[in-house]
Amino acid sequence: MSTIYNFSAGPAVLPKEVLQQAADEMLDWHGSGMSVMEMSHRGPEFISIYRAAEQDLRDLLAVPDNYRILFMQGGGLSQNAVIPMNLVGRKADPVIDFVHTGSWSGKSIKEAARYAKVNVAASAEASGYTTVPPQAEWQLTPDAAYLHLCTNETIDGVEIDFAPTVPAGVPIVADMSSHILSRQVDVSKYGLIFGGAQKNIGPAGVTVVIVRDDLIGHALPLCPSAFDFRNVAVNESMYNTPPTYGIYIAGLVFQWLKKNGGVAAMEQRNIEKARLLYAALDADDFYQNRVAPPYRSRMNVPFYLRDESQYEAFLAGAKARGLLQLKGHKSVGGLRASIYNAMPIEGVQALVDYLNEFAKR
Amino acid sequence: MSTIYNFSAGPAVLPKEVLQQAADEMLDWHGSGMSVMEMSHRGPEFISIYRAAEQDLRDLLAVPDNYRILFMQGGGLSQNAVIPMNLVGRKADPVIDFVHTGSWSGKSIKEAARYAKVNVAASAEASGYTTVPPQAEWQLTPDAAYLHLCTNETIDGVEIDFAPTVPAGVPIVADMSSHILSRQVDVSKYGLIFGGAQKNIGPAGVTVVIVRDDLIGHALPLCPSAFDFRNVAVNESMYNTPPTYGIYIAGLVFQWLKKNGGVAAMEQRNIEKARLLYAALDADDFYQNRVAPPYRSRMNVPFYLRDESQYEAFLAGAKARGLLQLKGHKSVGGLRASIYNAMPIEGVQALVDYLNEFAKR
Repeated sequence: MSTIYNFSAGPAVLPKEVLQQAADEMLDWHGSGMSVMEMSHRGPEFISIYRAAEQDLRDLLAVPDNYRILFMQGGGLSQNAVIPMNLVGRKADPVIDFVHTGSWSGKSIKEAARYAKVNVAASAEASGYTTVPPQAEWQLTPDAAYLHLCTNETIDGVEIDFAPTVPAGVPIVADMSSHILSRQVDVSKYGLIFGGAQKNIGPAGVTVVIVRDDLIGHALPLCPSAFDFRNVAVNESMYNTPPTYGIYIAGLVFQWLKKNGGVAAMEQRNIEKARLLYAALDADDFYQNRVAPPYRSRMNVPFYLRDESQYEAFLAGAKARGLLQLKGHKSVGGLRASIYNAMPIEGVQALVDYLNEFAKR
Repeated sequence: MSTIYNFSAGPAVLPKEVLQQAADEMLDWHGSGMSVMEMSHRGPEFISIYRAAEQDLRDLLAVPDNYRILFMQGGGLSQNAVIPMNLVGRKADPVIDFVHTGSWSGKSIKEAARYAKVNVAASAEASGYTTVPPQAEWQLTPDAAYLHLCTNETIDGVEIDFAPTVPAGVPIVADMSSHILSRQVDVSKYGLIFGGAQKNIGPAGVTVVIVRDDLIGHALPLCPSAFDFRNVAVNESMYNTPPTYGIYIAGLVFQWLKKNGGVAAMEQRNIEKARLLYAALDADDFYQNRVAPPYRSRMNVPFYLRDESQYEAFLAGAKARGLLQLKGHKSVGGLRASIYNAMPIEGVQALVDYLNEFAKR
């Protein structure tokens, strides 16, 4: 096959070394005679894989000891229900605060309203979700059950790079699905961080939840037992059978990250990749990224052509060069390049070369 | 590596051909330049994989046109909550009937009680879950929301090989996790069939639900949207990102089943494998399977040694011969051999040889 670069927003590109190792070990993991897919989740082989993955993620994000790491199922979207079902029981008359910065926080708001009162503390709707409302204007609830943020809006390309100041005792819940492990983050500033794995972690079907101990153990009676954080935490993510193969692949990605300098080194690469791409988009009037520069995502770069008749030609030309999955999300149209950790700088450079050439044509 | 046979109850043995194909295609699926793990679930490549898997499963089980096949997340256990959340809304004062035949139906009863009134129509508790109470004694509710059966108790080794007669209009919900595709079944006799994939279908993390059209669209308001059967059905299992790689592996298993004669041929092989194993256990007073012969599972064979001091020696000797994962479930102890579709008859013969030899020693 010729070299391709895959700009899918997720499921997304994975490191070649990880895929090669997975292929090599597919029929026989470390001389066990078994594929990882065939192992009992309660056997010593898989337990060793699980514990290494948990520890490596803990190391990479410097997760404090008073946080549990849970490997769950259902995707980031399911957490929009699972989190309120687990957290609102701490309050007698719970209110959940949200900052509405795009499609994903919008979905979270809608779902949470099934389980508690919802307060949209700030909304970027008027801007077409191209910015983050200034913190000073957020109408936060003093005794909220939690403040929910989508710190990287995968569809709208808006990133929140700070942990905001919140009323004392209000935990911040952050949906980091599409930028977890792409930048350094102080976990201790959050009550809960979650993400679907299929962007920067591994294959679809694994959902990572990092949650502070005191937020565990408050599930509503209607919360399915498989999604009760307490059950998942006390059983090391094995209250029921976990997505074993996905956890194994995530573990290989964690090892790859460590070998390549960890999150700090990734962040430097990601800064450089994003700089290259936004510079190319801004250089030519032919393209347009609509997000206010301080909030432009380093991971997901939506862009538009001023000449709407050129989309098909753009995508066809890209495909011919091996630049794949550049179509924008159906809800917003246009184009989008997702440049996660596993996207090498050569891929971004190839896209930039094509952007320049296509604009000149 | 030397030949091993893996008797795990799940995640469990997969066909070697399937694992080999997965390894071969890991870095480049059909010349796409991408791993299946890296594909957008909304792209033409993955859609083709999904549709083929759905159609092959439909063919294998002769699923009628008025049933949807859903590929979900959360495992069979999560369905203990998801099913009541989706089905009890059809009734004003819902009652769910259960027949308690072992550990898994027991878990289902406990979970369903969060969402509706539960009626245990019959229980095998007095027998130590070694039989199925006679149908004539089942105290069924005339207008039940549904009757739930675990048609193969993975831990207890009890199989229900018939679709019982039920009051008119009451759908049967069958947890077939550990024997789906192992025997022919008339799907039209059930309202809903479900199963975690990690026994006879593929890797852990995929949950298959086969549900009749009229049972879709009744989710309670508290049902997370990702688990509302309507959302899953109208979006072809892509309301949110599905476990794409697991669906791909399941699809390869379905192709393997078709190439090997389908479910009818599997059932003949499974009958022969079970006959061999139970004959060996019954032949010698040294071993004991406690299940009443008409209800002995063809898939999961729990057994005990009369001499309790011999368990460690038995397991060590088995391992030395490459006979792996024979330890019984921690809740019941003893030993267990799971002999799913992908377990070749040579594996069962190797186990039988060892049983005979160990008993003589």
